[in-house]
Amino acid sequence: MNDLTLDYLFHPQSIAIAGVSSDPTKWNPGRGYMYALVGSGFRGKIYPVNPSGGEIDGTKMYASIKDIPDSVDYVISAIPAQYTPRLIADCAAKGVKAIHFFTSGFSEIEDEEGEHLESEILKVVRQSGIRVIGPNCMGLYCPRTGLSFALEFPRQSGFPKQSGPVGLFAQSGGNSIYCIREASARGVYFSKVVSYGNAVDLNECDFLEYLAGDSETEVIAAYIEGVRDGSRFARVLKEATKVKPVIIFKVGATETGTRAAASHTGAIAGASKVWESLLRQSGAIQVYSMEEMVDVSLAFLRVPRPEGRNTAVIGVGGGASVIAADECSNAGLTLPTLPVHLRRRLKDMYTTEAGRIFRNPVDMVPFTGPEILADSIRAIADCDQIDLLIMHVAFDMWALIDVNDVTAVYVESILDLKGTIDKPVAVALHFCAADRAKELASQARARLCEAGFAVYPSMGRAASAVNKVIEYHEWRQRSHEGDS
Amino acid sequence: MNDLTLDYLFHPQSIAIAGVSSDPTKWNPGRGYMYALVGSGFRGKIYPVNPSGGEIDGTKMYASIKDIPDSVDYVISAIPAQYTPRLIADCAAKGVKAIHFFTSGFSEIEDEEGEHLESEILKVVRQSGIRVIGPNCMGLYCPRTGLSFALEFPRQSGFPKQSGPVGLFAQSGGNSIYCIREASARGVYFSKVVSYGNAVDLNECDFLEYLAGDSETEVIAAYIEGVRDGSRFARVLKEATKVKPVIIFKVGATETGTRAAASHTGAIAGASKVWESLLRQSGAIQVYSMEEMVDVSLAFLRVPRPEGRNTAVIGVGGGASVIAADECSNAGLTLPTLPVHLRRRLKDMYTTEAGRIFRNPVDMVPFTGPEILADSIRAIADCDQIDLLIMHVAFDMWALIDVNDVTAVYVESILDLKGTIDKPVAVALHFCAADRAKELASQARARLCEAGFAVYPSMGRAASAVNKVIEYHEWRQRSHEGDS
Repeated sequence: MNDLTLDYLFHPQSIAIAGVSSDPTKWNPGRGYMYALVGSGFRGKIYPVNPSGGEIDGTKMYASIKDIPDSVDYVISAIPAQYTPRLIADCAAKGVKAIHFFTSGFSEIEDEEGEHLESEILKVVRQSGIRVIGPNCMGLYCPRTGLSFALEFPRQSGFPKQSGPVGLFAQSGGNSIYCIREASARGVYFSKVVSYGNAVDLNECDFLEYLAGDSETEVIAAYIEGVRDGSRFARVLKEATKVKPVIIFKVGATETGTRAAASHTGAIAGASKVWESLLRQSGAIQVYSMEEMVDVSLAFLRVPRPEGRNTAVIGVGGGASVIAADECSNAGLTLPTLPVHLRRRLKDMYTTEAGRIFRNPVDMVPFTGPEILADSIRAIADCDQIDLLIMHVAFDMWALIDVNDVTAVYVESILDLKGTIDKPVAVALHFCAADRAKELASQARARLCEAGFAVYPSMGRAASAVNKVIEYHEWRQRSHEGDS
Repeated sequence: MNDLTLDYLFHPQSIAIAGVSSDPTKWNPGRGYMYALVGSGFRGKIYPVNPSGGEIDGTKMYASIKDIPDSVDYVISAIPAQYTPRLIADCAAKGVKAIHFFTSGFSEIEDEEGEHLESEILKVVRQSGIRVIGPNCMGLYCPRTGLSFALEFPRQSGFPKQSGPVGLFAQSGGNSIYCIREASARGVYFSKVVSYGNAVDLNECDFLEYLAGDSETEVIAAYIEGVRDGSRFARVLKEATKVKPVIIFKVGATETGTRAAASHTGAIAGASKVWESLLRQSGAIQVYSMEEMVDVSLAFLRVPRPEGRNTAVIGVGGGASVIAADECSNAGLTLPTLPVHLRRRLKDMYTTEAGRIFRNPVDMVPFTGPEILADSIRAIADCDQIDLLIMHVAFDMWALIDVNDVTAVYVESILDLKGTIDKPVAVALHFCAADRAKELASQARARLCEAGFAVYPSMGRAASAVNKVIEYHEWRQRSHEGDS
């Protein structure tokens, strides 16, 4: 049953959607999927299904899957749970390869009927060989082939059409959507995303194995509530981490979370200590929020492996520098004091200004303009004792005063660094709650992202993400040495 | 030297600002202070000082403090460090009570001259009895008397004119500004704020003692890089926590941070373990970021003390609920399973919908409209086993679909709760990066804040802040019992 490749899931020629309402004044999930596929540029055929037949936006609706004149590769079910056994029977008769059940109301609810229906699905599916995604999930997003679960389309513009190197599988649909939107705003795009819910058939092991072998995927991210087969998961994970980074957010880590996970996707969560040691031993990267999942993915994509942990922290603000130093240390990075000759050189550059700190963190208010700032950053980057640079810019007071436009000077100087220094760089943009500060920070983020920088909303998040990249490479190296 | 009250600092009748540039085309800090005071409604007299005399915006500038015809209570120094000994001599001659040095370039820089100047200041000040705030800091913000360091005024609208019950003292000016802006966006306002920099004379002990006795201050918050007199600080802190909550963000907790703090304000930071145990034993509330400082202040102001830690978590989204459960547990709250009779009642209310979770966390998509949602929240609030409610609303997919406007229904239902349930409530608003989601979340935050709710950007931050309120009251009770 465990296909080595699930590639066909992401390349259907024809999709039927069961449960498309014909009433255009009322949103319904079935129609949401139709719009999402059309909007994402899906080039195959789309067949809406509604027991009453009729039309939707000029497209004929079929009363049953069986009535569709062509072959159907993939079916999206947005019908109530009690009608699903019949749908599966029709799909089996039609030779459908896979069904995605958006439909909920199975083992995740407190209801014998739900559990019964779920085991019915599994039985019919095992007999027919149809593979199932879900139930109780959003399904597939694959920008290259036009698959999408951006059901809010056309009100929103849908998910990005741009492909990227991150493959995500997540039991929660809401968290998948959050991750896609958050990531794309920060320059991280996806090869394939699977929201897989209750995992009655295809599960985390299948998706992990597939993404590990998928040439379009360079980094794997996963949101897991619980696994069905722990030993297979451990085995698959160990193989996957050998070939690419695997970032895992394991929830249900507390007793209460475990109960919540059972209610959400019927998952058996497992003790958090067991998970922690499994992930550490496997070389997987454990994260503790969806935000951190995006943070670390971004670091893998945009921060080349630093040679060590010696970090230069450069920005504006005394207090911000002190906090930055603590946050870098807490994340596992080290901030060596810059050598005396370099500090003297920097001091000479800023001779007319008081109040700068040159030890590291380096606090420079560039009243003197962008050239001196860019030169001083390059001087620090040239220092042999420094492995990477983290720049921080705070959109607070200085950003709100026109004089010399300190913040703009910083942003321009960072943009200028591109290609002129050979050390890894990350950027932390912090902002106060003033509308103007938010707007400026947002503009700066967009420009820096566009230029290819890894941009974080705080120093702590930047430092922690970069440190996880270093840890992964250290683990790879250790386990490689162990092999030889 | 340790006045029991520093009240006069916040009630000057006349202020002189040394270092106001006469060139209106160039921003300078001295003129920034002038605009800030005028814009904040300071009713006393303002005397700009510039060695060349002249005029600024129609106001006469004095060549020296000594030339000012009236008495001067308070002086703001925005002149270069090397001219400060002369300024102090003039202030002494004039009978000035206090000087705030915005001026930097003292013990915080790597420079003997800076240290020498700082000790000179201290000497003259001790002789004359003038009290000093700073150097190297932003000074005072007191909305009631119109003191402000919103130097970006008039480009920005300045700091809030509204007073509130939080008193803040912070060594960093940038962090003070961040805190004021962030707090006011979330409904938290200040009695008095002191940015006190290098603390050459007045220091953390003076401000803590003052705010502990200040009737306008109900909650004290502090950002501290290091203390000058550890034993006095411990003594003052112990007294302060007896009368009101004291929230402390101690930075320079790591070796690197310690070095950064020394460079920033010349502070001696001290080992983090020592600080942790000092704060815990004193009943102070330790926080680890400026954001958390605002989070906890907000909880003290807007979340009445819950009778225990039994929390009902109510919101939309399976994955969001699982994460919420983990985050509450990690923060120290407990989520009891709701009793069977209550779950049955809730289930009956939502009979037409599949996929809800009623155990706790409770995941209800209110397709049925606001009445049923409000009724079900009230039913949960009535449950004897529940001490407090945390509602979470995610501005992601559901918020972006018009149908039934799920998110709006939630927000309306929370607003309706006001005054109709007798359990403490906190709200977590989470949003994805879509512009529309941010906009809706921002509107919802504004309305909920306005209505008096404690609103947080994540469940983890809400849960942690509420738990700290519970801990403080437990400590008060324990130490009170110990006294009797």
